[in-house]
Amino acid sequence: MFQKMIEINMLYDFYGQLLTARQKEILKLYYEDNFSVSEIAEAFSISRQAVHDTIKKAEKALREYESKLGLVQKFEATEEVIAAIDLEINRLIKENSQNERLKEGLQKIKSIIDQINE
Amino acid sequence: MFQKMIEINMLYDFYGQLLTARQKEILKLYYEDNFSVSEIAEAFSISRQAVHDTIKKAEKALREYESKLGLVQKFEATEEVIAAIDLEINRLIKENSQNERLKEGLQKIKSIIDQINE
Repeated sequence: MFQKMIEINMLYDFYGQLLTARQKEILKLYYEDNFSVSEIAEAFSISRQAVHDTIKKAEKALREYESKLGLVQKFEATEEVIAAIDLEINRLIKENSQNERLKEGLQKIKSIIDQINE
Repeated sequence: MFQKMIEINMLYDFYGQLLTARQKEILKLYYEDNFSVSEIAEAFSISRQAVHDTIKKAEKALREYESKLGLVQKFEATEEVIAAIDLEINRLIKENSQNERLKEGLQKIKSIIDQINE
């Protein structure tokens, strides 16, 4: 369950804007605010089955978007690239600790690269 | 017209997978293979109006995806970040041209960063 929550939250971050207003609302209540299906059903005056169906349909849509656009996968790949660069920069800083001007330039690169994937 | 072609091509690269098979096919013929509306109408045995409508609807869908997900905008922002880092690395290489080990490390960073936005 916890794994799935992380997965859906991640997909929601990337593709939530493509869901309908109702799908977004219910998914948020269920996965982010931890409301139960019954509580959501009551809040919207709809059946538990309708809530369940909306959640399932929204999850399916999110997964389909990921299978087509792969944004989560790309995000994770980019995170790895950034981590690899950070590692390399830290190594260079350590190896050249007397060179203040170089260290400054390397720190600058680190701060620029942090803008990616934000 | 040329500007629009570039715009649609870019949007198609990012969101083409979200279009229907028919929309993809017609948009590709029109924007990539430079077929005329009449030629496409003939090839599919549909009216020129139907081709026109399909193109308009697909363009609208692509623009809506961009307004919701902003992938083209993010791609361009990342390109700028990468260019800024490249510039900084080139400067550091130039300033430390005697330090072979450092140069090697900086080149390595450049090659790693090129994996982003590919």
